[in-house]
Amino acid sequence: MYFHRQELQHKSKPSKPDALFARRLQEVLGGQYGEITVALQYGFQAWNSHLPGKYRDLLFGIGAEEMGHVEMLAVMIAQLLEKTPIQGAEDAAKADPVLGAVIGGMDVQHAIVAGAGARAVDSNGNPWQGSYITASGNLLADFTANANAEMQGRLQVARLYHMTDDHGVRDLLSFLLARDTMHQNQWIRAAELRAEGHEDLPVPSNFPISKEYREASYEYINFSDGAGAAEGTWASGPTPDGKGEFSYRAEPNKGVPMPPATQPDSRFYGTDPKPNKVEKVLGAVKDAVEKK
Amino acid sequence: MYFHRQELQHKSKPSKPDALFARRLQEVLGGQYGEITVALQYGFQAWNSHLPGKYRDLLFGIGAEEMGHVEMLAVMIAQLLEKTPIQGAEDAAKADPVLGAVIGGMDVQHAIVAGAGARAVDSNGNPWQGSYITASGNLLADFTANANAEMQGRLQVARLYHMTDDHGVRDLLSFLLARDTMHQNQWIRAAELRAEGHEDLPVPSNFPISKEYREASYEYINFSDGAGAAEGTWASGPTPDGKGEFSYRAEPNKGVPMPPATQPDSRFYGTDPKPNKVEKVLGAVKDAVEKK
Amino acid sequence: MYFHRQELQHKSKPSKPDALFARRLQEVLGGQYGEITVALQYGFQAWNSHLPGKYRDLLFGIGAEEMGHVEMLAVMIAQLLEKTPIQGAEDAAKADPVLGAVIGGMDVQHAIVAGAGARAVDSNGNPWQGSYITASGNLLADFTANANAEMQGRLQVARLYHMTDDHGVRDLLSFLLARDTMHQNQWIRAAELRAEGHEDLPVPSNFPISKEYREASYEYINFSDGAGAAEGTWASGPTPDGKGEFSYRAEPNKGVPMPPATQPDSRFYGTDPKPNKVEKVLGAVKDAVEKK
Amino acid sequence: MYFHRQELQHKSKPSKPDALFARRLQEVLGGQYGEITVALQYGFQAWNSHLPGKYRDLLFGIGAEEMGHVEMLAVMIAQLLEKTPIQGAEDAAKADPVLGAVIGGMDVQHAIVAGAGARAVDSNGNPWQGSYITASGNLLADFTANANAEMQGRLQVARLYHMTDDHGVRDLLSFLLARDTMHQNQWIRAAELRAEGHEDLPVPSNFPISKEYREASYEYINFSDGAGAAEGTWASGPTPDGKGEFSYRAEPNKGVPMPPATQPDSRFYGTDPKPNKVEKVLGAVKDAVEKK
Amino acid sequence: MYFHRQELQHKSKPSKPDALFARRLQEVLGGQYGEITVALQYGFQAWNSHLPGKYRDLLFGIGAEEMGHVEMLAVMIAQLLEKTPIQGAEDAAKADPVLGAVIGGMDVQHAIVAGAGARAVDSNGNPWQGSYITASGNLLADFTANANAEMQGRLQVARLYHMTDDHGVRDLLSFLLARDTMHQNQWIRAAELRAEGHEDLPVPSNFPISKEYREASYEYINFSDGAGAAEGTWASGPTPDGKGEFSYRAEPNKGVPMPPATQPDSRFYGTDPKPNKVEKVLGAVKDAVEKK
Amino acid sequence: MYFHRQELQHKSKPSKPDALFARRLQEVLGGQYGEITVALQYGFQAWNSHLPGKYRDLLFGIGAEEMGHVEMLAVMIAQLLEKTPIQGAEDAAKADPVLGAVIGGMDVQHAIVAGAGARAVDSNGNPWQGSYITASGNLLADFTANANAEMQGRLQVARLYHMTDDHGVRDLLSFLLARDTMHQNQWIRAAELRAEGHEDLPVPSNFPISKEYREASYEYINFSDGAGAAEGTWASGPTPDGKGEFSYRAEPNKGVPMPPATQPDSRFYGTDPKPNKVEKVLGAVKDAVEKK
Repeated sequence: MYFHRQELQHKSKPSKPDALFARRLQEVLGGQYGEITVALQYGFQAWNSHLPGKYRDLLFGIGAEEMGHVEMLAVMIAQLLEKTPIQGAEDAAKADPVLGAVIGGMDVQHAIVAGAGARAVDSNGNPWQGSYITASGNLLADFTANANAEMQGRLQVARLYHMTDDHGVRDLLSFLLARDTMHQNQWIRAAELRAEGHEDLPVPSNFPISKEYREASYEYINFSDGAGAAEGTWASGPTPDGKGEFSYRAEPNKGVPMPPATQPDSRFYGTDPKPNKVEKVLGAVKDAVEKK
Repeated sequence: MYFHRQELQHKSKPSKPDALFARRLQEVLGGQYGEITVALQYGFQAWNSHLPGKYRDLLFGIGAEEMGHVEMLAVMIAQLLEKTPIQGAEDAAKADPVLGAVIGGMDVQHAIVAGAGARAVDSNGNPWQGSYITASGNLLADFTANANAEMQGRLQVARLYHMTDDHGVRDLLSFLLARDTMHQNQWIRAAELRAEGHEDLPVPSNFPISKEYREASYEYINFSDGAGAAEGTWASGPTPDGKGEFSYRAEPNKGVPMPPATQPDSRFYGTDPKPNKVEKVLGAVKDAVEKK
Repeated sequence: MYFHRQELQHKSKPSKPDALFARRLQEVLGGQYGEITVALQYGFQAWNSHLPGKYRDLLFGIGAEEMGHVEMLAVMIAQLLEKTPIQGAEDAAKADPVLGAVIGGMDVQHAIVAGAGARAVDSNGNPWQGSYITASGNLLADFTANANAEMQGRLQVARLYHMTDDHGVRDLLSFLLARDTMHQNQWIRAAELRAEGHEDLPVPSNFPISKEYREASYEYINFSDGAGAAEGTWASGPTPDGKGEFSYRAEPNKGVPMPPATQPDSRFYGTDPKPNKVEKVLGAVKDAVEKK
Repeated sequence: MYFHRQELQHKSKPSKPDALFARRLQEVLGGQYGEITVALQYGFQAWNSHLPGKYRDLLFGIGAEEMGHVEMLAVMIAQLLEKTPIQGAEDAAKADPVLGAVIGGMDVQHAIVAGAGARAVDSNGNPWQGSYITASGNLLADFTANANAEMQGRLQVARLYHMTDDHGVRDLLSFLLARDTMHQNQWIRAAELRAEGHEDLPVPSNFPISKEYREASYEYINFSDGAGAAEGTWASGPTPDGKGEFSYRAEPNKGVPMPPATQPDSRFYGTDPKPNKVEKVLGAVKDAVEKK
Repeated sequence: MYFHRQELQHKSKPSKPDALFARRLQEVLGGQYGEITVALQYGFQAWNSHLPGKYRDLLFGIGAEEMGHVEMLAVMIAQLLEKTPIQGAEDAAKADPVLGAVIGGMDVQHAIVAGAGARAVDSNGNPWQGSYITASGNLLADFTANANAEMQGRLQVARLYHMTDDHGVRDLLSFLLARDTMHQNQWIRAAELRAEGHEDLPVPSNFPISKEYREASYEYINFSDGAGAAEGTWASGPTPDGKGEFSYRAEPNKGVPMPPATQPDSRFYGTDPKPNKVEKVLGAVKDAVEKK
Repeated sequence: MYFHRQELQHKSKPSKPDALFARRLQEVLGGQYGEITVALQYGFQAWNSHLPGKYRDLLFGIGAEEMGHVEMLAVMIAQLLEKTPIQGAEDAAKADPVLGAVIGGMDVQHAIVAGAGARAVDSNGNPWQGSYITASGNLLADFTANANAEMQGRLQVARLYHMTDDHGVRDLLSFLLARDTMHQNQWIRAAELRAEGHEDLPVPSNFPISKEYREASYEYINFSDGAGAAEGTWASGPTPDGKGEFSYRAEPNKGVPMPPATQPDSRFYGTDPKPNKVEKVLGAVKDAVEKK
């Protein structure tokens, strides 16, 4: 169960409206790595979790916090849009180039669709979608996804920070940066469920290794002509999963020949590989005879 | 530049056709974590890369290898579909329950749209999409995304392994498992560009820390009522970024009040917060007078 | 701020696993009119609200309740999937037609992607998307959208009720039906903000009526040849907005002619309406001369 | 059958081209609540209708009218785009800030993809999609959806009205406003099929009420801390469906505990809840022995 | 303007319901090359047309015919769904394998969402989308797109023909096949606007040829190792545009080196190419001093 | 297998950065007819091909070339974005209208998401998607799709040519124009597999003609009132498939009546066509009695 309290975790009030920045801020609300993504991602990981206790508690707790971040951003965007101008863009540009730039560069759906309100979309107006979520049932994989989400998210907030001088907005962004710092650290730490034996590298670690083609498991095979790849720590030395040694192959082995072209049922009407055959003519005759 | 050779990196030939498994195999071809995703993800990361040398060489090399994996899977799927039945599903089910199950459970677009061929979709027929790709310009974030992609990918291949007994298919899957093992290890190792000073935790590490709300950077704040979260390694001790100590707060501080409702230009026709006012009537009169 | 409690509003436990029904149940979790839609729709309407007080309180309250419904459904789906079989579908169908039907008819991504967990998708595997949400800033319009959402939602739950005999599942569905009954009644009642003068029909009611082409405002114009439409209550009598009388026109007035074809800049290379002209040849000569 | 006449229902000619407004106007052509939506929504409701006569005639008639509105808007947009500039945006901005604003703020696909023509997209360039349509087979639910669509549509047209001074464009918008007024009134009236006994509240009204958890059917349960919700007409008094009395509960009852974590087949490779167990090692040994 | 008549162009009545085939038939209603696509594609091409007269008349006429095809298919699908079973799929499979196959293989949204009605989706349940439409303003390009659409469409109908034995359904399909035959022939003929001088190959033909890199305009460059491509009619002889001679190059010329990695503003926080530099430390100090 | 070489097929270097043009250029990288589309389209057509030899070799060869075009465009876009400004848009507009226009008109996700890098999206930020691809198994249909793709692609490049004065960019565009010229010519030539008897018009040509409703196969039926369509070459004379004569029908034959409304199972809760019936009341009583 979720409960709502009409408070915000941190102050969320711009010094002045800014419809252009409102559009940009949509990215971290409704984009691929926005707050809706993490709120629902942690929720689904918790609901699908196979082990009770601290990991599921963590997922529930952070998921609920992120729902509050969705709210802080939506409320901020609505305030940034409060003075959204409504008039012809070209005329505005003639009268005042700055106003014209605002009308031309803002999210037009903020005005037309939401009447100066926040939306569940990214900064280009693409609707948020469920496929942004990752919840596989394997927590080492999913915590890695979570660490990535928090890294991409903090990166975007850091970029947005420089796209505004507004103290109120920057104040909120500085808070979000801090929470992303916490969440990055926390998922990296949680990935240490590896140390407790729940899971290991390579994910999934309990797939029987005998069923893997082990000759190819630790070999760097070079499919581009850059020589530098040979110098990486992935080309020699022990592997992070502690089960092998990296090796380097400068170009791939000769492959196997391309299998022959498939020949599906002729009633799929793919291109006929045997043109001009007699049967085709006979078939047409037979068909004409059987004509219903 | 890309060059193509009419060979496959590994044998890709099923023992017998299986339209049902062909559908399942689409997931690792055209799904969120399928081979199209990683092939193009590594490509975009390389094209957008800001540092030349071994990391970019690595991205180019693995990206090209993954294009070959796209091909191996597409060729396998076309072969699995080679005997796709074409007939009424209900009639088939009456005559032969197994045939009915095949027709009912296969991807109908494999038959109707592709004429027994592979498609750029996942196992539910959702088209692959560009938003599956992550390429932020920050390599520590992106290598974490890559590690996640290879974990999710290997996990899916491992599950698919048990959904078929076909030796030819399993042979290909065992090869893909091995390459995913390599790629997991390699991206984890590559993330060690952190050790070379290119980047650090938290990502992005060169955002000035003074602009972050540091009080909240290492504090676990509990928004759910699960007591277990306090016991995690994320609730006390040094943080993975080496810059702080985790602390635990059993419930959030009191927040700030919800800001007042916004009041945009009345011409957006949001709900009028001041009903029945005199001005409204006067406005209507004025409007009627000015009627064009 | 949102807080989570590790309880469910109502019991959510199936009598037995049923992977086929799990797929169907996804519709009311992640479909167009599923619980994610209403949870976020009410949230965005609240965050964008222009009038404080009871209407916003209502939106916050119901929005939070719906988040709990998302959770109940996700938890139910995970349990329904607990015994999801993992094996070849065709072989299963040979050994046991019922098992074959289960494997063939279930959501394959439940197995491959989520490892027997719930997903943010509908019953056909389409990801939930932000465009399912309506939040326009005009509460009479939005409450009508909400009433519709609860009607469509209750209709779907009622249909699902007959697709299972499981007492545990039906118990949850009977609870959801009841809450949808409440929510339908409540949004219809809330639409009575019209009576308080906040808004009126037609929406938006404060657009100056003098700027509307009033001759066409209450006239049924018949564009199909069905005579029945003339008998409806929309063809005569007073209009629901209380501002006019319905009339009926058996076929449309003669229209205005189609405007002439547009002639954009020739550098858009649309089809040239003036073929074979001399200038074209001359232009080619000139072009050849200027060849860089 | 549909027939086309090369006339428009109303004059659709701008006073002058305006590529910026053309983009905005796309919203009511190809957006969620644009004319394509209602044209096809009413069509599908008619084709799926279970009762012949006046309601189906109404759906067919209005659906055909809306196809003509699609046409009027597309023709208007093509004319607004007739003088679309084609040149470098930055250079244009240097030479003439207004021209720069036009090029910067217009829909770039209007130029690149459609060569100064209308498109089946919204004002942010999102393609129209079939999921915008609602056609459930239940006419009370669907007429409520239709009323909402006409409300959102008229709201958007009213906003657009203020974004242009062009008399020709405003003339068309004033006509569309009038037809939306008619259509709002008409769907609200048609929803009175409730009075004829075809359907009733709550939708669907013929689901056996004994199968609903009636204790929760008319109770407002407060999940947020706003006290105002208790004052609404949804918190006491008779319900609109005429079957109950609203009551108010200040906070939810205690819920039921979260069900235990699920334990799917281990071959889905979810995180192992029992780490470090002996069987795991034994399994690996057994696996190695059986290695094929 | 569009007018509707409550008749169908051809008989559209199945001999018996078939929910499985109803799903398949959705492909040619709401799929990429279904009737919604061509109905709207021809409409948009007409509305955007730059030359009046026979070509625009053709587009309007066929567009309206296709709207009637949308209707015939929707009506057929609704009838095929008339006896859609509603019950638990697994139980049905136990009682009757055929019934189980029907419930397992049908489109579940046909039942849950549309209540046994047609939908604006394809055979996998993907919603139709506006990006299926092509309308570029260049009629030679667009008529080629139209010819392709009619080819893909007829191909799909031909495949569907073999997936049913129902005489009523086949009767409708045989009619659609005939109209697709007509439409293929007609667009190929219409592409002869080339002969009238409106347009020519290569499209767009009025782009100044001097601005094209002519050395590469007629050369087959081999990027795969298949020798067969050299034998094609595209490797030698005159080109179809009548302006050149095909030539064959067995492998590409040496390319130009990859440009150096880009170096954007450091505030985008891409990976720092110069690690561990002194300035970095100094910057941190400066930042700390300036701390606001 | 694909191999990558760190070279570009043609020089790809702008004279100066231009973030506005970078956005426009995304169309031919990640749009419906961009290079990702053709690269993967030719790949899937090859993998699904049913006839070995020159046609498949052609598909593999051109597919690999197009992957290199994806790369050239991505590299160009990254360079165009190299000096992307990062600051507040409104403030920039105040200080410098040109800079304001750049920030307002660029793709904001280029900055926020990709950190000044290329993305797999079109010029409006819509992600590339798998449904852009056509690969039906029928090569005459697919080569027509390919010809269309190259026509639309060249058209877009020609338009883009006029949107920049940058010599470096124009140099790349002139090369792409040349390759599109080659590819248009080549697919038109390859469609001559018709002459070799693999396939013929109408596609698919081997569907038994006796099963087609031949009376309607060559008849132009006029559904709009434009008289011009009668004058086209599609209204009389021999048909391109060589199998008939075009005829012209000024208006459609009378159609067949609309079938009666469908009556699905009442448990789908569609609108009840028989209101107020006695059975309904009795049913409610019975239901109450059976109440579980």
